[in-house]
Amino acid sequence: MAFGPAAMGYDRAITIFSPDGSLYQVDYAFEAVKKGWTAIGIKSKSGVVIASEKRKAQSLLDVDSIEKVFLIDDHVGCSFAGLASDGRVLIDYARNIALQHRLIYDEPVSIDYLTKSVADVKQMYTQHGGVRPFGVALVIAGIDKSVPKLYMTEPSGQYMPYQAVAIGQGYYTATEFLEKNYKEDLTIEDTILLALKALSATLKPNEKLTPNTVEIGYASTQTGLFLKMTSEDKNMYLQKL
Amino acid sequence: MAFGPAAMGYDRAITIFSPDGSLYQVDYAFEAVKKGWTAIGIKSKSGVVIASEKRKAQSLLDVDSIEKVFLIDDHVGCSFAGLASDGRVLIDYARNIALQHRLIYDEPVSIDYLTKSVADVKQMYTQHGGVRPFGVALVIAGIDKSVPKLYMTEPSGQYMPYQAVAIGQGYYTATEFLEKNYKEDLTIEDTILLALKALSATLKPNEKLTPNTVEIGYASTQTGLFLKMTSEDKNMYLQKL
Amino acid sequence: MAFGPAAMGYDRAITIFSPDGSLYQVDYAFEAVKKGWTAIGIKSKSGVVIASEKRKAQSLLDVDSIEKVFLIDDHVGCSFAGLASDGRVLIDYARNIALQHRLIYDEPVSIDYLTKSVADVKQMYTQHGGVRPFGVALVIAGIDKSVPKLYMTEPSGQYMPYQAVAIGQGYYTATEFLEKNYKEDLTIEDTILLALKALSATLKPNEKLTPNTVEIGYASTQTGLFLKMTSEDKNMYLQKL
Amino acid sequence: MAFGPAAMGYDRAITIFSPDGSLYQVDYAFEAVKKGWTAIGIKSKSGVVIASEKRKAQSLLDVDSIEKVFLIDDHVGCSFAGLASDGRVLIDYARNIALQHRLIYDEPVSIDYLTKSVADVKQMYTQHGGVRPFGVALVIAGIDKSVPKLYMTEPSGQYMPYQAVAIGQGYYTATEFLEKNYKEDLTIEDTILLALKALSATLKPNEKLTPNTVEIGYASTQTGLFLKMTSEDKNMYLQKL
Amino acid sequence: MAFGPAAMGYDRAITIFSPDGSLYQVDYAFEAVKKGWTAIGIKSKSGVVIASEKRKAQSLLDVDSIEKVFLIDDHVGCSFAGLASDGRVLIDYARNIALQHRLIYDEPVSIDYLTKSVADVKQMYTQHGGVRPFGVALVIAGIDKSVPKLYMTEPSGQYMPYQAVAIGQGYYTATEFLEKNYKEDLTIEDTILLALKALSATLKPNEKLTPNTVEIGYASTQTGLFLKMTSEDKNMYLQKL
Amino acid sequence: MAFGPAAMGYDRAITIFSPDGSLYQVDYAFEAVKKGWTAIGIKSKSGVVIASEKRKAQSLLDVDSIEKVFLIDDHVGCSFAGLASDGRVLIDYARNIALQHRLIYDEPVSIDYLTKSVADVKQMYTQHGGVRPFGVALVIAGIDKSVPKLYMTEPSGQYMPYQAVAIGQGYYTATEFLEKNYKEDLTIEDTILLALKALSATLKPNEKLTPNTVEIGYASTQTGLFLKMTSEDKNMYLQKL
Amino acid sequence: MAFGPAAMGYDRAITIFSPDGSLYQVDYAFEAVKKGWTAIGIKSKSGVVIASEKRKAQSLLDVDSIEKVFLIDDHVGCSFAGLASDGRVLIDYARNIALQHRLIYDEPVSIDYLTKSVADVKQMYTQHGGVRPFGVALVIAGIDKSVPKLYMTEPSGQYMPYQAVAIGQGYYTATEFLEKNYKEDLTIEDTILLALKALSATLKPNEKLTPNTVEIGYASTQTGLFLKMTSEDKNMYLQKL
Repeated sequence: MAFGPAAMGYDRAITIFSPDGSLYQVDYAFEAVKKGWTAIGIKSKSGVVIASEKRKAQSLLDVDSIEKVFLIDDHVGCSFAGLASDGRVLIDYARNIALQHRLIYDEPVSIDYLTKSVADVKQMYTQHGGVRPFGVALVIAGIDKSVPKLYMTEPSGQYMPYQAVAIGQGYYTATEFLEKNYKEDLTIEDTILLALKALSATLKPNEKLTPNTVEIGYASTQTGLFLKMTSEDKNMYLQKL
Repeated sequence: MAFGPAAMGYDRAITIFSPDGSLYQVDYAFEAVKKGWTAIGIKSKSGVVIASEKRKAQSLLDVDSIEKVFLIDDHVGCSFAGLASDGRVLIDYARNIALQHRLIYDEPVSIDYLTKSVADVKQMYTQHGGVRPFGVALVIAGIDKSVPKLYMTEPSGQYMPYQAVAIGQGYYTATEFLEKNYKEDLTIEDTILLALKALSATLKPNEKLTPNTVEIGYASTQTGLFLKMTSEDKNMYLQKL
Repeated sequence: MAFGPAAMGYDRAITIFSPDGSLYQVDYAFEAVKKGWTAIGIKSKSGVVIASEKRKAQSLLDVDSIEKVFLIDDHVGCSFAGLASDGRVLIDYARNIALQHRLIYDEPVSIDYLTKSVADVKQMYTQHGGVRPFGVALVIAGIDKSVPKLYMTEPSGQYMPYQAVAIGQGYYTATEFLEKNYKEDLTIEDTILLALKALSATLKPNEKLTPNTVEIGYASTQTGLFLKMTSEDKNMYLQKL
Repeated sequence: MAFGPAAMGYDRAITIFSPDGSLYQVDYAFEAVKKGWTAIGIKSKSGVVIASEKRKAQSLLDVDSIEKVFLIDDHVGCSFAGLASDGRVLIDYARNIALQHRLIYDEPVSIDYLTKSVADVKQMYTQHGGVRPFGVALVIAGIDKSVPKLYMTEPSGQYMPYQAVAIGQGYYTATEFLEKNYKEDLTIEDTILLALKALSATLKPNEKLTPNTVEIGYASTQTGLFLKMTSEDKNMYLQKL
Repeated sequence: MAFGPAAMGYDRAITIFSPDGSLYQVDYAFEAVKKGWTAIGIKSKSGVVIASEKRKAQSLLDVDSIEKVFLIDDHVGCSFAGLASDGRVLIDYARNIALQHRLIYDEPVSIDYLTKSVADVKQMYTQHGGVRPFGVALVIAGIDKSVPKLYMTEPSGQYMPYQAVAIGQGYYTATEFLEKNYKEDLTIEDTILLALKALSATLKPNEKLTPNTVEIGYASTQTGLFLKMTSEDKNMYLQKL
Repeated sequence: MAFGPAAMGYDRAITIFSPDGSLYQVDYAFEAVKKGWTAIGIKSKSGVVIASEKRKAQSLLDVDSIEKVFLIDDHVGCSFAGLASDGRVLIDYARNIALQHRLIYDEPVSIDYLTKSVADVKQMYTQHGGVRPFGVALVIAGIDKSVPKLYMTEPSGQYMPYQAVAIGQGYYTATEFLEKNYKEDLTIEDTILLALKALSATLKPNEKLTPNTVEIGYASTQTGLFLKMTSEDKNMYLQKL
Repeated sequence: MAFGPAAMGYDRAITIFSPDGSLYQVDYAFEAVKKGWTAIGIKSKSGVVIASEKRKAQSLLDVDSIEKVFLIDDHVGCSFAGLASDGRVLIDYARNIALQHRLIYDEPVSIDYLTKSVADVKQMYTQHGGVRPFGVALVIAGIDKSVPKLYMTEPSGQYMPYQAVAIGQGYYTATEFLEKNYKEDLTIEDTILLALKALSATLKPNEKLTPNTVEIGYASTQTGLFLKMTSEDKNMYLQKL
């Protein structure tokens, strides 16, 4: 049995600090994120890309019908890693924020504001009793008035802007790959290819990306629209790898 | 006495994460699912089928009057495994969702939306204090504008689309059987037969399916209606086994 | 001292699952049921019968004034075993449900719906914090549009249809007796006699049923009315034993 | 130190069952009843009587001003044993129930309904969190349309009709006395004498009932009124002992 | 370390009974009463008296400005022993009750009703969770339509009528003194002297009552008014001792 | 490790009594008071004075901008020792009470009433669950219609009138000094000097009061106004020491 | 394992005091502050400066888009150290306070009032149950009617005025540097340079401030406006170092 901080109970009630100023429940929620399917976000001069793997955990799982990249509004999408049901709740919330913004101000929500709104909900679930933190990290990407934006929100409610970011079980390998290969001035096509290469890098030797097991969303600064890639297009890009 | 995570108390309060990012209460609720009567869902090109066993636990139990396959709306039905009273509460909820949809939009609820609504309730019971998770898994199947749909919702609130899925005490054997024998292009009759064969595979050597101990619901893409099979029809299919 | 699951605390907070998916508090509530006075319900082609013993625990207890078989509405009655005060609360609730149904729809409540309503309250008391489960099982019996109905609801909120069922301290012996002697095609008089015989089977050698220590309610499909038997009639039947 | 169920904590939270289906907190509340001053209720053909002792625990206690038999309404009275402040709360509640009944229906409340109302409050305090059970038993007696009624309510919320009943520290001796000497066809005067004899039986050898240390309430079927006996009348009866 | 009931935790949560039917928190609250300054109440044929000591715990405490005998209404006053801040809250409550009574009924509140109102608040704090009992006992005395009344309320919410009563650290000696010397037919002057003698009896050999360290309130049946004694009058009485 | 009452848990939940009638949380809150900066209040015939030290815990702390003596209303001021943020909350509350009194009655609040209002809030935080007591003591001083008033409120909600009082880390030395040197008939100037001498007495040998490290508030019966002393005046008085 | 106060549980529930009058949860929250990025605030005669480092924890973090110095209103800004999501919540709150003040009074909020409002929220989170304290310290600086103001608020809700203050991981070195080099009569340019020098002092030998890794906000008494420095200006100042 352990005799570290865990054994002393600081990690068993959400809303308390340990003597070193940590919130263990929030740290543990991050462990749930690390067990999720890998998702990657990249921001380049020409746009943003989100790519996420899907794993056929069971051969009869209808993996084609599973969504891992989500449209929040015309100009912004997201993916997540961690507890799928927690992720769904936050994506619903983000869509409502975007919708209300359009209704009230008659213009698209800024991606900063959208991300902050989601992160504020997460923060609240780390400071008040009777709830647990959200066990999910979100990659949010889109185009704000021609400017590409990419954020990642943590279970703590913290969010940061990134040039490229990876979450989920392959996050370490993918991040290492991206740190070596990221360049800011890529075409949108090359940005997509970079995302797929990073995702490929996380696979086991006998695994291979297929149109069925990867989802891709992207938005170029030209159109400003976040689009999910069709199976044909995915195939085309995968052949270029 | 155990000295694993259980002994450390991470599994005794619903809303907390263990150091490895698990929610033990949700995992334990799944154990209740594994003790329930077996239920099977199959989706083929021609439609969907739900088959569920009923066990005469006591000889004076009026097993004929027990329902294990439930009509949610004209086009969608479901079955469950786990705590029967928890299942009943969620089925009531699903029926209300379907009814309200017809009242407000004057058209049948989509099966995606219906399943998500039920799963959202389940998620809420895993994140907030003062309640326990639902100890039940649901198989939801139906026809959405000629497209067959099949989902399974877990106690965590996660739901996934399946080509074929089994829950309850015989889930392991049935899944193994289905993985070997599933084909997508089956007639609705063959889909029904496959479900019954999978269910039979879970029985003990001296057990046999009878019209009294199996319930079958199905919907073909042609009619788009989810129907519960009469005793005569069940007999017919069982003789073909 | 025990070192089984009890020693680990899974049974001390209502709303949590044990690692094997059990809700111990619900199981323990069933123990309260097993300590109550025996009650028996039988459904035959000609009607339903509820018979319940009353025990003169103390010689000055005015056992004649104690009620153990309760009229819920014209067509349906019930008895219970377990905590008497819990039973009273649920019977009040059932009567309200029946009354409201008559007021709103101008027709008798169906026995399925009535039983489900009572069972839903029980389920709620097993899933939410700050309350304990109801320590009582109910036998509900009546005639729905000429069809005899018999249900038993458990502390978990689960309810099942039965041909014959026994609850309370003599449930094991009575069930054994009923499994051997139950036939579906009995006259209402023979159904009543079967219930009294099953109840007699649970008595100690020196005990004997008397009009004072047994309550009988019955409903024949002919009248559709649930009636409590007078002392004279009880005497008549007891002499036939 | 004990190693029985008490040591395992089942008796330290109101709303939980022990593995044998007991609610220990309710059992312990009954112990408070057993420490109270003795109160006796008797029902005969000619009426009802409640007699209760008062003990001059301290020589300057103004025992004459202490009330132990309470008028609830013209036709019904009560006494209690256990925590005096808990008893007072329930007697207030009973008086409100009786008063409201007169206001709404313009007729006296039935003693069954009155007793059930009080018992329902008690039950509620055994099933919901954040409260403790009432540590008090009530003897309620009166005349309902010429019919004598006598009930005793327990801390559990259970209530039973009795021919004669004793509660408080002398309950065992008094019950034994009553079981030997109770007859149903007594005049109201003999019923009063029987109550005083039973109360006397619980005294220590050097103790004696005096008009100061006993309170008597009675209702005859002739008048239908529950009356508290004057000091002179008490003296007269005590001399007959 | 103790191994009695305290070690078993029955005394650490307000709202639970110990196996012998005690509420330990209420018993412990009484210990706070026993640490307070001594207060004495006496009721004679000619009126009521309350006398309370004040102790100059610190030499710069402005003991003259401290109040220990409080006017509730023209005809009734009180003193307390125990936690001063708890006492203040209950005295405010009593004054409100008295004021409301005058506003609504245009006549003084009866002392029975006033005492019961205060005691009901105390009872509530012993039965519901999230609060602790009041750590204070009150002596309430006054004249009800020419009748002298004297009550003492305990932390449990129990209240009793007394001919004479003492609370606080000197309660044992004072009660002993009063039991020996109390007579009912005293003039109001002799009643006051008796109270001062009883209070003197509780002092240490080197201590002496002075006008500064005793407060006296009294009400004679003639005037029906509860008055606080001036320093001059106190001096006069103290010289008579 | 301790084996006294602390080890038994009586001090870990606010709202419970220990077996000897103590509320440990309230006692511990007083320890926070004893760690605060020293504050002194003195009442003489000619007025009241509050003097409080300020410590330059860190050399860049802008100690001049820190307030330790607060104006509540024209005629009343206060200081505190203990948790600064708790003190601030209570001073805000006191100011509101004073303001409301002026708005409603068009006259200054009495200092008794003001102090009682603050103390009632403190009492409430010692009796109800879900909060901790206030870790702060307040010295409140002012002139009520030409009468000097001086009170000290404790974390328990108890408040007492004083001729002179000291709180905070130097309370013991200052009280000792005041007990030896206090006289009631001082001019306001001598009262101020006495306060400064008492404060000086609490300093370490190498420490010295400066206009920067002491705050002084005073009110003479002549003006009836509570004034904070300017730096020049402070200097003048400090030179007289 | 520890046997100090931590082992005794005083630090595991927010709202309780330890025997020495500490609130451990508040102390632990300060540890979170000590792990944050360093932020420095300086107040001189000519104005205020806030400088905060940003660390490129990961090479793909888009550190340019991260904000560490925040505008609250035209005349006031702030920075924080500790949990970023907690800081964000309080900055939102501060902005609302400032906005409301302008709307209601049509003039800028005073910096004292603004700081007190934020600190009051923090205090509330240390005294009430069901929440944890904010794990963040804020440096708030601005110009109030030509007067420079600088405050630091702690997790306890305490706030103090400073001439110069440092928070976060480099607070010790920076404070030491500032204590040696702070002078009050600096030009705004020299104040900015002093802040940058203090920040540089906290870096490791191989680290260097760049326009990307430092944020600077300042307000001179002349303009009264709080401005964030452009990259060019930052570069200019960094070259002067």
